[in-house]
Amino acid sequence: MIELFTWTTPNGEKPIIMLEECGLDYDLHLIDISAGEQKKSDFLAINPNGKIPALVDDGIRVFESGAILIYLAEKSGRFLAPSGKARAEALAWTFFQAGGTGPMLGQWYHFEKAVPEKIPYAVERYREESIRLLSVLDGRLGDRDYLAGEFSIADIMNYSWAVAGLDGLDVRERFPALSMWAGRMGGREALARGLDRLRSAKGGLRA
Amino acid sequence: MIELFTWTTPNGEKPIIMLEECGLDYDLHLIDISAGEQKKSDFLAINPNGKIPALVDDGIRVFESGAILIYLAEKSGRFLAPSGKARAEALAWTFFQAGGTGPMLGQWYHFEKAVPEKIPYAVERYREESIRLLSVLDGRLGDRDYLAGEFSIADIMNYSWAVAGLDGLDVRERFPALSMWAGRMGGREALARGLDRLRSAKGGLRA
Repeated sequence: MIELFTWTTPNGEKPIIMLEECGLDYDLHLIDISAGEQKKSDFLAINPNGKIPALVDDGIRVFESGAILIYLAEKSGRFLAPSGKARAEALAWTFFQAGGTGPMLGQWYHFEKAVPEKIPYAVERYREESIRLLSVLDGRLGDRDYLAGEFSIADIMNYSWAVAGLDGLDVRERFPALSMWAGRMGGREALARGLDRLRSAKGGLRA
Repeated sequence: MIELFTWTTPNGEKPIIMLEECGLDYDLHLIDISAGEQKKSDFLAINPNGKIPALVDDGIRVFESGAILIYLAEKSGRFLAPSGKARAEALAWTFFQAGGTGPMLGQWYHFEKAVPEKIPYAVERYREESIRLLSVLDGRLGDRDYLAGEFSIADIMNYSWAVAGLDGLDVRERFPALSMWAGRMGGREALARGLDRLRSAKGGLRA
């Protein structure tokens, strides 16, 4: 059985969406990052970097959401072309998220919401870079329905962070193609089922 | 023929090291980021995100260094196990770099060296997180020679940024296993050949 260790964050949402899209069975283990559970020794044995999500499948551990999506795509034979242009595009747009909207929106959020004292230079730096990255996605989606042609891991990788950016920075009107894609993604049954299961589990934990 | 578009930065070094390690032929095209060439329309047609490195191979374009390394590993059949635990580890440590030491050391460098006015909070934030990430690599390398067992794309992915961190933050003595790994990597003939070719090309351009 696949064991998924995750939490209700943009990175934490990706693997549960992928598991539901692939129709794979899994056990869901919540790692409450507000209680620091990702830094405890049990979890560090799975991901020494102390970050969710992580997954264990028959003795194989995988951490980093991008690696998990590739692992599950190759296990299931779904949402990642085996070769050629479609595979190269899906991998490129997957790493675009890992090194781009993830860290940059994360830094924007930190300087906008979490610092003791506002630092205008830093807020502006990360707001501008995040908006630039969203504009790249918007441009890419201007003449296609999904980032790599067919629906792929690149869409799952980018979805939760793109929504966080569109809403957090209030730029839905500025990026219509990206917003339409986000709506198209949000309408997928399996995706919604994954997010529901994750959020219900957290609700149950807190109840 | 493989066409490589790159520059002499930690991200830009990864694909030329990989090409030399694989023994693949390629044409090297320098994209001078100090002159903003990565934002010109010719290059944006290859990577709409306007960042080096990027690669074109027989009509397939690949951008993002992590995607390029996976693409070349699968093209050559080298440095990425086809399945199982070794593949999962290599992918996990590859994404660890893409979302970790890359962006965090990049932000540290910005706030340490490039801002008009020093912001102590930001310098300290990125210094601490970069050191934490280097400590994770050091721990991983305490009882093995390479990040995913055998030498793999994970090592090439992490090398240039780890060296930049060890030297920039002056922490070689604090992280002996990571420093020994960096020395082991630096001693590889193909790696050195790639870095030499890149730096000589830049030297020729500037001469």
